Amino acid sequence: MTTALPALYINSARLRDDFDRLAQIGATVGGGISRLALSNEDLQARAWFASQLEDVGFEVYDDDAGNLSGILRSERPASRTLLVGSHLDTVPNGGRFDGSVGVLAALECLRTIAEAGIKLPVHLEVIDFTDEEGCWQSLLGSQGLTGRLQPTHINDKVEDHAAFRAALIRAGIHPNDIFSARRDAESLVGFVELHIEQGSRLDRAGVDIGLVTAIVGRTTCEITFLGEAGHSGTTDRDERKDALLGAARFISQAHEMVRRHYDEGVFNCGNVRVHPGAFNIIPSKVCLTMEFRHPDESQMVAMEQALIALSEDCAEKHGLKVQARQIVHMPAATMSTPMLQAAERACQSLGVSYMRTIGYAGHDVQIMSSFTPSAMIFIPSVDGVSHNPREYSHWEQVEKGANVLLHTLLNIALSGAES
Amino acid sequence: MTTALPALYINSARLRDDFDRLAQIGATVGGGISRLALSNEDLQARAWFASQLEDVGFEVYDDDAGNLSGILRSERPASRTLLVGSHLDTVPNGGRFDGSVGVLAALECLRTIAEAGIKLPVHLEVIDFTDEEGCWQSLLGSQGLTGRLQPTHINDKVEDHAAFRAALIRAGIHPNDIFSARRDAESLVGFVELHIEQGSRLDRAGVDIGLVTAIVGRTTCEITFLGEAGHSGTTDRDERKDALLGAARFISQAHEMVRRHYDEGVFNCGNVRVHPGAFNIIPSKVCLTMEFRHPDESQMVAMEQALIALSEDCAEKHGLKVQARQIVHMPAATMSTPMLQAAERACQSLGVSYMRTIGYAGHDVQIMSSFTPSAMIFIPSVDGVSHNPREYSHWEQVEKGANVLLHTLLNIALSGAES
Repeated sequence: MTTALPALYINSARLRDDFDRLAQIGATVGGGISRLALSNEDLQARAWFASQLEDVGFEVYDDDAGNLSGILRSERPASRTLLVGSHLDTVPNGGRFDGSVGVLAALECLRTIAEAGIKLPVHLEVIDFTDEEGCWQSLLGSQGLTGRLQPTHINDKVEDHAAFRAALIRAGIHPNDIFSARRDAESLVGFVELHIEQGSRLDRAGVDIGLVTAIVGRTTCEITFLGEAGHSGTTDRDERKDALLGAARFISQAHEMVRRHYDEGVFNCGNVRVHPGAFNIIPSKVCLTMEFRHPDESQMVAMEQALIALSEDCAEKHGLKVQARQIVHMPAATMSTPMLQAAERACQSLGVSYMRTIGYAGHDVQIMSSFTPSAMIFIPSVDGVSHNPREYSHWEQVEKGANVLLHTLLNIALSGAES
Repeated sequence: MTTALPALYINSARLRDDFDRLAQIGATVGGGISRLALSNEDLQARAWFASQLEDVGFEVYDDDAGNLSGILRSERPASRTLLVGSHLDTVPNGGRFDGSVGVLAALECLRTIAEAGIKLPVHLEVIDFTDEEGCWQSLLGSQGLTGRLQPTHINDKVEDHAAFRAALIRAGIHPNDIFSARRDAESLVGFVELHIEQGSRLDRAGVDIGLVTAIVGRTTCEITFLGEAGHSGTTDRDERKDALLGAARFISQAHEMVRRHYDEGVFNCGNVRVHPGAFNIIPSKVCLTMEFRHPDESQMVAMEQALIALSEDCAEKHGLKVQARQIVHMPAATMSTPMLQAAERACQSLGVSYMRTIGYAGHDVQIMSSFTPSAMIFIPSVDGVSHNPREYSHWEQVEKGANVLLHTLLNIALSGAES
């Protein structure tokens, strides 16, 4: 089918112009972006994006979870919708590419298709998801759209969400209506997201495009080792119950275990808090935050069990008690094979180098993939730097990514009507 | 000589009465004491102590470092002075015995000697040292008395000491005069301190008195491991520069090394601070506070070198940099052999069980011992608990300690005139 559209390309200069204009909204001194979800800068970016949609005559739609869309309607009103997009929000002092590239390239694809007068049997909808980065609630928009949000995410039964609710209301999103953002899965063909890799695999391999087969699951736990405070000098060696010693052993051995037994797994211990934290008192309590990821959900479960068993082992060795509490669990997500193949055909027809890869970061596609067939396309990040003003992707690779996205959408849209 | 004073004992009921009255000053809800140096409670305790001294007609003296003394003068005005005492300040919510027992027993010894009409060839001086616990400056009083204080302890050249200076002034101690507290070592016979052990060695051995041969030296260092922040999920395993992983390895191995190679050494890592401390960011910087102690000063030097070498090793293994900064070094201190023997004779003449031991905590005697011959006498701490409201010593052991102190003073005083 791609043979029917051999010479269609996005307008790189126009995309670049959008990219540069968006990068001014929330720009930081160091060349980064601070556009935290629901902040003034985020609202400004959304207003700018809405006006871009209006300029080309797309139907602007914002749902009850604040997701902001532009729709290019099929001539057949009963058509299903193919979603394409990413997010405009950023982490504090993040980069210019993360999220933005996916939204702007999707907008450019729709403009290109509209200009070319191509009639498709599906509606195309470019979408900016609310709070992907989790300034307030990680992946809020896609969770809202897929009906995954729980009242506890918004209400105050467990935690104090007053500031979050105020920020939602200020952005025109009513907390009590947010659950109405849920769509009917039957109305969708699928979802495609173009994104920077945020890792160095593509860059090191010298490949232009990564076709994501799976997004790793992610679990965060808080592990608390409990010992006994004591005078650091006078307490007998054999009577020490040093919570930090148990925690240190756990950190070392957990990294070693994951490296040895979980080839595709990653582990991080990002923080440690020591109580009481005085140089001359034996630590009585150490809380550490650990996180692990794996593309296979059954391995996620195995890793969690193994890590908790290891923490119990380390506690016992030093006469400690230990408690583990799961904070977040995001299951591993598998991408749709037909959609992956559609993207593969797009790369082949465009003559762009590609490889299959795994996504190690969280993305809206992870939520979407359990709701509707989904695909994710990566472009290389120079040196893998991300969430950092130094985040960078070569423009020719952004352009290639946008063209792969364009032809992936066309491939899916032209076959999707039949599926 | 002790045969000359066979039946002299302190008045246990009077000492107990003092103990109970002092324990009301700064008493906490949980049965502990908060009498931080230079606080209202500390000032109240000092005022109470001064009035006790006046009640029995001792000469009250407070020097320019705030040390508060009561002097029982010899009839020979040119006599040297034998100092005896400890400290009235406590840690926050500390115990009732730490420091207090040493000051009150010394007071009781002087009262007993005065009442018995014993004429000694030395002046006896009971002393309460300022800020032993280091609320502002560890061992401030004894450092002042021995001329060890440096202008940097008080002035603002390196750190901001404004609050410390204000606290001194409020307590009637003028920061600029504090260096005048220095005494002439020639004017002293020596110093004796009675103290609770704060460890469990005596309690476990079932022995009444510990005669301290040496006080451990103590060094604190800050070790900083420097890695590189990165996305916890997307960063390639082999490119991680995880500062916490290096620090965890160091903590485990440092404990192991000290246990294996430094039989009388102790090691503590009391705090760890992780930057940036987010669950999904690889730690870029970890600062840990370590402390080590040993009774032999040459071994202190060897331990420091070995620990720093180990930190460099651990850093190299994980692609990190490391910096070490010494914060405090307090050299190991050896007690005076003739004074130790005087205490030993006191135990023998009183028929009290005793053992030689090492002091693993810091005390004013550590500072005093490099200035004047010094001795330290321990009484057992039940279960070794200290710096805690549960700190406890059996009263009969406090009483035995006070009687050993009394006869130690007499033994020294009667031989000290000749030395």
